[in-house]
Amino acid sequence: MNGRNLIGNEYAEVNTSAFKAINPLTGETLDGDFFPAQVKDVDEALNYAVKAFTVYKNIDKDRKAAFLRAIADEIIALGDALLERACAESGLPLGRITGERGRTVGQLNMFADLVADGSWVEAIIDNELPDRQPAARPDIRRMLVAMGPVVVFGASNFPLAFSVAGGDTASALASGCPVVVKAHAAHPGTSAMVASAIQKAVVSTGMPEGVFSILFDNGYAIGEQLVRHPKTKAVTFTGSFKGGMALSKIAAERPVPIPVFAEMGSINPVLLLPEALNVRAEQIAEQYAASITMGAGQFCTNPGLLLGIAGAGLNRFKATLAAKIAAVSSATMLTPGICKNYQELSDAMISEKEVTLIMKSDLLVEGANNQALAAVAEVSAKDFLANPKLKEEIFGPWSLLVVAENIAELGEVLDYVGGQLTLSVMAEDAELKNYQPLLDKAEDITGRILLNGVPTGVEVCAAMQHGGPFPATNDSRFTSVGTTAVRRFVRPLSWQNWAADLLPPALQDGNPLNIWRLVDNKMTKS
Amino acid sequence: MNGRNLIGNEYAEVNTSAFKAINPLTGETLDGDFFPAQVKDVDEALNYAVKAFTVYKNIDKDRKAAFLRAIADEIIALGDALLERACAESGLPLGRITGERGRTVGQLNMFADLVADGSWVEAIIDNELPDRQPAARPDIRRMLVAMGPVVVFGASNFPLAFSVAGGDTASALASGCPVVVKAHAAHPGTSAMVASAIQKAVVSTGMPEGVFSILFDNGYAIGEQLVRHPKTKAVTFTGSFKGGMALSKIAAERPVPIPVFAEMGSINPVLLLPEALNVRAEQIAEQYAASITMGAGQFCTNPGLLLGIAGAGLNRFKATLAAKIAAVSSATMLTPGICKNYQELSDAMISEKEVTLIMKSDLLVEGANNQALAAVAEVSAKDFLANPKLKEEIFGPWSLLVVAENIAELGEVLDYVGGQLTLSVMAEDAELKNYQPLLDKAEDITGRILLNGVPTGVEVCAAMQHGGPFPATNDSRFTSVGTTAVRRFVRPLSWQNWAADLLPPALQDGNPLNIWRLVDNKMTKS
Repeated sequence: MNGRNLIGNEYAEVNTSAFKAINPLTGETLDGDFFPAQVKDVDEALNYAVKAFTVYKNIDKDRKAAFLRAIADEIIALGDALLERACAESGLPLGRITGERGRTVGQLNMFADLVADGSWVEAIIDNELPDRQPAARPDIRRMLVAMGPVVVFGASNFPLAFSVAGGDTASALASGCPVVVKAHAAHPGTSAMVASAIQKAVVSTGMPEGVFSILFDNGYAIGEQLVRHPKTKAVTFTGSFKGGMALSKIAAERPVPIPVFAEMGSINPVLLLPEALNVRAEQIAEQYAASITMGAGQFCTNPGLLLGIAGAGLNRFKATLAAKIAAVSSATMLTPGICKNYQELSDAMISEKEVTLIMKSDLLVEGANNQALAAVAEVSAKDFLANPKLKEEIFGPWSLLVVAENIAELGEVLDYVGGQLTLSVMAEDAELKNYQPLLDKAEDITGRILLNGVPTGVEVCAAMQHGGPFPATNDSRFTSVGTTAVRRFVRPLSWQNWAADLLPPALQDGNPLNIWRLVDNKMTKS
Repeated sequence: MNGRNLIGNEYAEVNTSAFKAINPLTGETLDGDFFPAQVKDVDEALNYAVKAFTVYKNIDKDRKAAFLRAIADEIIALGDALLERACAESGLPLGRITGERGRTVGQLNMFADLVADGSWVEAIIDNELPDRQPAARPDIRRMLVAMGPVVVFGASNFPLAFSVAGGDTASALASGCPVVVKAHAAHPGTSAMVASAIQKAVVSTGMPEGVFSILFDNGYAIGEQLVRHPKTKAVTFTGSFKGGMALSKIAAERPVPIPVFAEMGSINPVLLLPEALNVRAEQIAEQYAASITMGAGQFCTNPGLLLGIAGAGLNRFKATLAAKIAAVSSATMLTPGICKNYQELSDAMISEKEVTLIMKSDLLVEGANNQALAAVAEVSAKDFLANPKLKEEIFGPWSLLVVAENIAELGEVLDYVGGQLTLSVMAEDAELKNYQPLLDKAEDITGRILLNGVPTGVEVCAAMQHGGPFPATNDSRFTSVGTTAVRRFVRPLSWQNWAADLLPPALQDGNPLNIWRLVDNKMTKS
């Protein structure tokens, strides 16, 4: 494992003091020295990236797909050493990390399939109409083209799937953009290992040097420099509201503003409709106790807000939820900072005078560090609507039950909570159609709405939308999960009356790539 | 013509002092009193819009299409009175305004076709995979949904095609969003007439009241209030860099930021390649003299920067350009402010010590007000690269010829000028392939690249991209012209395991709308 900054295909010289990774479970310092990048490294990485871009954007789709698949293969080739390191740095169990590796490799191969298929560029051709009156129509052809170097911030909570070779990197590379990763300081060894896998794939598939670089930093300076750098064209970030907004502000204030795709915070409301509680309150409580506490609740889709109407059904739900939460052992959080935040924020929420604790587990695992104990609390809808603190996200195994008097109050809560990544509805089929106005409100505030399921466990597929109205993300028009994530890094370009043989293959007559195109307003492969 | 603010289907009561329209050609005050809106009108218009949205977004596609067509019909039904008023308020000739009405009506019908076709919602279905290992895949379905009320700022330079019922309004209504128009103060009568046409269409096709409102103001306050209003979800603007940036800043600083689509400024470089000049310098000069001076140069795609390499060909081009510009009579500009700006900025540019005037027409039309005289000037590439003032847009019949020593200098100029709406290349087929690196640079900075044509005259079609890298627009990922303009006002929403009969028709099994959908990664109509 080489903890130096990888710029293009070479490791940069070391001029800074190393930092180390910590195992959050044991508190022990892990092997490996990691060296914070310097401003010159930022500059060099982006100069390389721009140079690589001029070549990479024109590399044919099958070679780009092969590159993505080679990254996936090299990650697998890292073997158990990668899994062990990721577990040690994140405190996440081996089963979870193994699954996450599968997702990471699956994402890379999914984007490879997308690139190889080629239709994602949305080729549109309007042929010349020389005889049109009052004026001829020129030949106009349009497709999506890559924007240039993308800066990817590794996320703490997915050390593989949303980090160095995660969804952001995979989608940016698929779109034709070079990537400069700012490694997350909580899992530098995992980052370095995955970076070496990407570097091997760059070399083995003949990609231009600089299509990928990675920089380390255990502070904020290098991240800021990356966002400010004039050659950066877009930024991806998954983390806190504060972090996302800070990066967005920097990007908006540049002489040439650039987009930041920030996934920031969501409390993922769950509507518990009366008949569903009537029929299966206990089953729903069991399902949600598992969703709230899975992975120590460290998911952006963690269900942090349960909404129901007072009554016997809700009381049965509460009783089972309390019993199930009480039976959950403490779990290791990703970092001491995240654990401290969880403890402080959940304690503060419980101490709000309107809030009543339903249950906090006391099953503390002995001898383990950074442990989070699951907790659920309740508040009346009236009180919830009057105290803005109560709608803030608490990252961890926590959920707040908001008890409404009636359906109208549930609607008020939905109007009030702001944009969300997900919104879940627990309902019997027969009752659902009675709540259309409530469901309309629900749709207006979320990126994904789901029925009789839990929001955790985000499927990676073409139809997935992982991005909701503000403040869940800063731009609800894009997703960070699923194939359409490539759209974040491209823009349309039109060619008018262009020379037939100099057009990109996707727009040439005869459709040499055999992709779906909109030709004179008809979707066709011919 | 009713110059009061139209909020929903009713004209608001009048509490402010009226302003009048001026004929820029004659200087005369035109009939009609127009009443600046007040803050309460903004609030009322947006409250109506939100109420309308809950109904309008769910209205079926054929009824929405009929609404758009009815607007087009009602505009035609206004007859010559509309044309006369638009000419009087803009100083534009009847032929141009008649053509612009055709374009306006054509746009509305184009969006009606798009809505009726229905495939634009990008329906994606990933069916359930109950047996998948290690976990079943849920059923996930995704489509684009409308975001809510859109504020449209009327543009001065297209009193019909980019104003009250122009491309922005048409695309917003097509996408399912209500519209509140801030009328441009330079053509309030035209605006009021077109607003009345839309109102009639709202009523005759049974659309919900508030799906359209229009507010007048001859200052900036109401525009600002509209952008700040918490119920506004998006803003469109075509105008100056200063205006676009001011609105973007307001929108970004809201508690809940919203997108502003600002088309701001572009000097639309034209690359004059050597062999093209060698073969047909005179013909190119003639073509460009017409493009530079068309409509008094008041187009966002006006070719303001001509780029060539010193030599005999370029000298022949200059000689013909000078002769043609000298023969162009003065033309009326849209407003006294625009005319004053043109005179001051072009005079200032000519007085820069590095700049040499090639020709300024002296054919001033007698007895006409607000006249612009066409002018072209030249500067060496070296001097151009050293003086940032020289790359600023001058709105009017103006172009600056930048004379390079060689191809490398042309490349430097392209790297330097920033994002553009268009970039034109005049070339012989045979020489084009020798300039690929230069063309690559050109593609990186523009939204549309064209060969052997002029950038003025933007075709309205599916393949058009009218929006380029900053500062041409503030978001190069979107277009304000052509069918894909609808994408500005929508975001993806995913439904997971949703009740089959409550899904939107676009996502239902059996494809009841008969639209193109991506089903399990295959494009299909079944």
